This record gives sequence, C-alpha cells and structure tokens, in this order.
Amino acid sequence: MNTFRELWDQLTPIGRDPDTGGYLRYAWTPAELACREWFRAQADARHMPVEEDGNGNLIAWLGDPAGGGAVLTGSHFDSVPHGGAYDGPLGIVSAFLALDALRERPQRPIGVVAFAEEEGARFGVPCLGSRLATGVLDPSRAAALTDRSGVTLEAAMGARPAGRTDLVDRVACFIELHVEQGRALDVPVGVGSAIWPHGRWRLDFTGEGNHAGTTRMADRRDPMLTYAYTVLAANKEARLRGAHATVGRVSVEPNATNAVPSVVRGWLDARAADADTLDALVEAVHKRAVERAARDRTEVTLTEESVSPLVTFDATLERRCAALLDAPVLPTGAGHDAGVLSAYVPTVMLFVRNPTGISHSPAEHAKDADCEAGIAALAAVLVELA
Amino acid sequence: MNTFRELWDQLTPIGRDPDTGGYLRYAWTPAELACREWFRAQADARHMPVEEDGNGNLIAWLGDPAGGGAVLTGSHFDSVPHGGAYDGPLGIVSAFLALDALRERPQRPIGVVAFAEEEGARFGVPCLGSRLATGVLDPSRAAALTDRSGVTLEAAMGARPAGRTDLVDRVACFIELHVEQGRALDVPVGVGSAIWPHGRWRLDFTGEGNHAGTTRMADRRDPMLTYAYTVLAANKEARLRGAHATVGRVSVEPNATNAVPSVVRGWLDARAADADTLDALVEAVHKRAVERAARDRTEVTLTEESVSPLVTFDATLERRCAALLDAPVLPTGAGHDAGVLSAYVPTVMLFVRNPTGISHSPAEHAKDADCEAGIAALAAVLVELA
Repeated sequence: MNTFRELWDQLTPIGRDPDTGGYLRYAWTPAELACREWFRAQADARHMPVEEDGNGNLIAWLGDPAGGGAVLTGSHFDSVPHGGAYDGPLGIVSAFLALDALRERPQRPIGVVAFAEEEGARFGVPCLGSRLATGVLDPSRAAALTDRSGVTLEAAMGARPAGRTDLVDRVACFIELHVEQGRALDVPVGVGSAIWPHGRWRLDFTGEGNHAGTTRMADRRDPMLTYAYTVLAANKEARLRGAHATVGRVSVEPNATNAVPSVVRGWLDARAADADTLDALVEAVHKRAVERAARDRTEVTLTEESVSPLVTFDATLERRCAALLDAPVLPTGAGHDAGVLSAYVPTVMLFVRNPTGISHSPAEHAKDADCEAGIAALAAVLVELA
Repeated sequence: MNTFRELWDQLTPIGRDPDTGGYLRYAWTPAELACREWFRAQADARHMPVEEDGNGNLIAWLGDPAGGGAVLTGSHFDSVPHGGAYDGPLGIVSAFLALDALRERPQRPIGVVAFAEEEGARFGVPCLGSRLATGVLDPSRAAALTDRSGVTLEAAMGARPAGRTDLVDRVACFIELHVEQGRALDVPVGVGSAIWPHGRWRLDFTGEGNHAGTTRMADRRDPMLTYAYTVLAANKEARLRGAHATVGRVSVEPNATNAVPSVVRGWLDARAADADTLDALVEAVHKRAVERAARDRTEVTLTEESVSPLVTFDATLERRCAALLDAPVLPTGAGHDAGVLSAYVPTVMLFVRNPTGISHSPAEHAKDADCEAGIAALAAVLVELA
C-alpha cells in the first residue's frame, strides 16, 4: 500500500519547469504522456486492465464494466501553462489510493479515469476528452483542431478521435475529486453543488499601426488604449455584479516597442452565479469597449469562443455525500469534466481545501493531511456507492 | 541609368510578408542578406568597390576614401516587424540614383552606406551598426547580444564585431535621406534640424498568478489592471506635455485565458522636444503606475533600456541645404543613424514627404514624384559638398 506522499513524489517531477516551478503538461506532449505511463504502471500494480476509449481518455477498471452500473472516478493530468501540481492529478492519485483503502471488494465495477485536455491549453477546447466521450463534441471538428504550432489533434493523438462510444452507457455515477481553487472551503473536504456558468470571449481591437516617435498623439488610432480601458471596465463591471472577469491573455501586432500597434487581441474570461448575470456582464463590457473605441477611432469586435451553462450536480448524490462526510456544500467558478459528465450521468464533486486559494499558478498548494482526508472521503463515498 | 521605379521594384519583393504586406527584414536574416546582395550588385554596376567595415556595415565607394574628406550618404535596410518599404531603403536607393544624376566626377570621394540593425528589432539596440562604427558601443557587449531565439550577434554576423576602426576618420560629412514619419512636411522635401530626445523604458508589473474562475475579485493581485491603468496614464501625461508616449509591446506570464497573470511587462517609448520634458513625462508615468500598484496590491519596477539625448544637426550644413533646396526645416521624433553620426562628423538629414504620416506599418507610403524630388535634392547637396 502506497502513501499519498509516495505516489505524489513520483508524479511531481514530471513536466515541471525548473525556472518557474510550474507545470507544462499539455495533452499528448512528452510530459503528459509520461503521466499516462505512470497511470498504466499504477493500474498494472493493482491488476486493473486499462481501457483506451478512442477519445484520448484512459480508464483503469476494478471489476468488469461490461454489464454497466459502474462507478467512475478520476480527473485529468494536463495543466495550464505554468500551472500547479494539484489541479487534476490530485483526483487521479486519490482515486488509486481510495481503492487501496477499500476493505472489501466492491459489488459494482469501479473505473479510474484520466480525461484528456481538460484545460484546453493546447487545442483551445476545455474538457475535450469528456466532451468527446459524451458526444457533446463532434469528432471531425475535434480532429481538425490545431495547437499554436499548427499540429492537429488527430496528429497529436496519433488517431482520429472516435467520438462518444459507450463509456457513459456503462457508468451509473461519476465522482471527481479536485483541489478547491479559491478560498471558499475552510475544512479539509467539501462537496460540490454547482459550476457557475462561464465562458471565453475574444475581443479584437483594430487601429492603425504607426511610428511611435513621429505620429502626433492626436493623429493616432491606438488600439492599446481601447484594450487598456476595456480591461479596467471588465474588472469594474464584474465587481458591481459579484461576478468574475479576467483578461489574462493578450496578443499584439506588431508588438514592437517603437510602433503604435495595429491590432490588440484580448481574451475575456467571465463567470457568474447565473446566466442572466453573466450575459449582462459580457454585454456591459462590450458596450463600454465600443464606446471607448469611438473615442480612440479604433474598432472592436466581440467573438464568443465557448460558453458553458450553469451545472447543478445530482441533488441526491450531493445530499448523500454531504451527510456521509458531514461536509459543507459549495459551488465553484471553475469548469471541470464533472460539469460535462453531469448532463449524462449522476455526478458529484469532492473538493480538497486550498489554504491560499491560489490555483493555475506554481504556488498552488494543498496540505498532505487534507489530501489524505480527501482520499478517505473518496473511499467512503466509493464504499457507499459501489 | 535606372529610374527610381526600376530600382524600387527590385527591392520591394524582398522580405515582404504576404499576409500583412509588411516587411520582416531583420539584420542578417535571409531577407536582409538579400538586400545586401542587391547593394553589392548596384555597387558593381557603378564600378564602386564595396568595403565591409567589420561592424556589419557596407560602404560602396566612388573615389578613394583613403585620404579622408569623404562625403557619406545612405541609410539602412533592416525593418521593424511588419514595417514599411520606405523606412531605410529609400535612403540607399536614393544615394545610388543621386550618384547617377551627377554630371561631373566629384572632387571628394563619396560613400554609399548601408548601416546594420538600425531599428534594433533583432538585438534590441537601435543604430547598432553606427554605434559600433563611432565607438559608442563596446564590441564585446555587442557580440554577446542575443535575439529572441538566443542567437548571438557574433553568430548572426559570422564574426566578432571590430568596433570603431577608421570610417568616421575618413568622412567629412554625412547626409541621410529618409522618408518623413509623421505629417510634419507638406512639400516634397525638407531638411532635418534635430532629433527629439527619446528612450525606451521597461515596466515590470508583478502580481499573483491565480485561477480566473475561482479567485474572488477582492482577493486578486492582478498586474494586468496596473498595466492597463499605466497605458492610459502614459497617453494622458504625454498629451498634457505635447510629448509622445506609446506602449506598443507587452508580454504576459502565463498568458492563459483562464489565469490571472503573475507578471505583465510593458515597454514605454517616450519622446519629447527637450530632455526636461522627457524626464518629467517618464517620472509622471512611473508615479501614476506606482500609485495604482498600491491599489492593486501589485508591484511595478521601471528599467531604463536606452535613452538618446537631443541631437541637433550641424547648423552650417542645415542652412546650406535649406538655402540650396529652398526647403523647410523640421525636427523629428524618430531615431536615426544620423543621430549617432552627428556627434562625430557634421551631419544633416533630408526628409521626403509622407502623405499619410504612417510609418512602421505596411501602409507606409511615399509618392514616386516625391521620391524623385528627394533624389534630385540629394544630388544637388552632393554636388555642393563633394
């Protein structure tokens, strides 16, 4: 029987950038493939056969899932650029260790899953593996997605994704354990109730490229000004509504010190407790960007890249888990494979406390004792359900 | 004898990006080396031997410069990213065509020069070739400069730069013809009087990387907000002083849609008619950035990357040219090799009208008739001086 720390120390060196301490584990890159090898070794050690579902996801099975009614648990290996160690892998490590903690062979089959490309950091579509496995994402569209170097998903996977197949048909429920990503949890373990509606919008600000030294201020059509104003406006509009808005990614043409830019692109990440608030937030940001663009003599267009509606986890599962664990119930602003699965199978999440609230950063952290409490909680839930 | 259009049509296909129509002619890349080959062919056709000065600069000589007293004219081939066709090459093309227009063999030797890395777009130091040839830049420091891919200047040049040697000792005066880069000239040709003091400062905004979905707005330390406020403040402070301020280059870590950034870097390009105004402008921008950083709980540091003091061109040359050409006299906000040379040899500039004022952009343009007027003006000045 492994301890949490033993397994954790096996995984943490893989894909860690020595400069930042953050992770570069993009789907199907050598670092993420090394995590998959580790997954196979863990499954082998437990005599669990590994299924590849044709959609980039791996499932290690305890018991035969052919007859259906299986309990599925797990998470993902891939990271955002320079992300933390816990976001994703904690749910997979905890799943293997929770199985080790079972005293009796469960009646139902249990699967440990590693979903592919949850962060969308390589191909731009978050929860790509779970979207394919539930049939939400068309496999032809997925196959043609390209990363920033122009590599297609099909080439990266080494095969054309199959789309759906029968994983969700064999599964009775899904439990995803995940590190909490804010400061909403002040005990070791909590139960997830919902995922806020959220989405990504691209804002293209277009002006007129020009010489920074010689162009009179009054003659400029500088899209960086419109961009900057919109960043501040998004922050204010989100605060007014108790919502979240972030502009964390920007690209500039030509991005030269001595040139007024011709184009600035910013990506707006917006989230709110309900869809009406989210819509109103994005509309307000767009309106203020357009008003400022008129002053700057620039142009702005807003493109919706992806929107995920409100997810409410299975109420029965949520109540059973909360009672079993005597744990608080909380929503999250973060997207998860559990959010995709929940439309197809009864789903719930367990959260492990994040003492600093930091995530998507090398500084992301959880205490070993809290991770061990998470494993015990997951084991208890598996006993209850399987 | 070639026409302007003939020579221009030979050069314009080299290094033009088919998507933007702008130029990617960075120093010692294949596009810029192809321009140098064109330069050698032009020199050969005119029986002008070409000198490599050991600092990356090429000089084609009419007459023997060994005895000194030479008249030097020319400019540079390299471009900013997606820059225009005229910025630089117009001065070299005009130099060869002005020599063609001379009716008599000049008494003094005349050199046509192509200076290396004037824009600083590859190695970050503008006017690199002229700084080396005047001894302003230490050749060991220059050799170790790296481009964004980590290639050293020494590797790119194929040799260690020599530093100084005797070019400026053999030259009696330097005339650089250049396309005007604002809308300050409403006749075909003008005479340069001065270059505004100008410089580049890097602003490093540091906060705390975090998850865009789960981090409460009140808990964030988002450096993108401080950056955005500073961009708008720089614009306002420059307008208040009749100066120029631009933030045209930015880099973000980790630059992910769903992450609050940990670091945002912006480069401030600032220029003013005098040094006191420039100092006051940069100080005011820094002060406002620091004030905002306190509100955002971020940090900001300001690093001076390069500052060029006020350049006043040779008063005698300026008066002689203005009288000879009956041309207006004007200062510029743009840096030039002429600004570096002017501390060592009597120097003046000729400007060719820019009808839109656009430069450092694919849309940069000058009319053929104005370029021909520029060639005639340069020829008249060479007759007068040589």
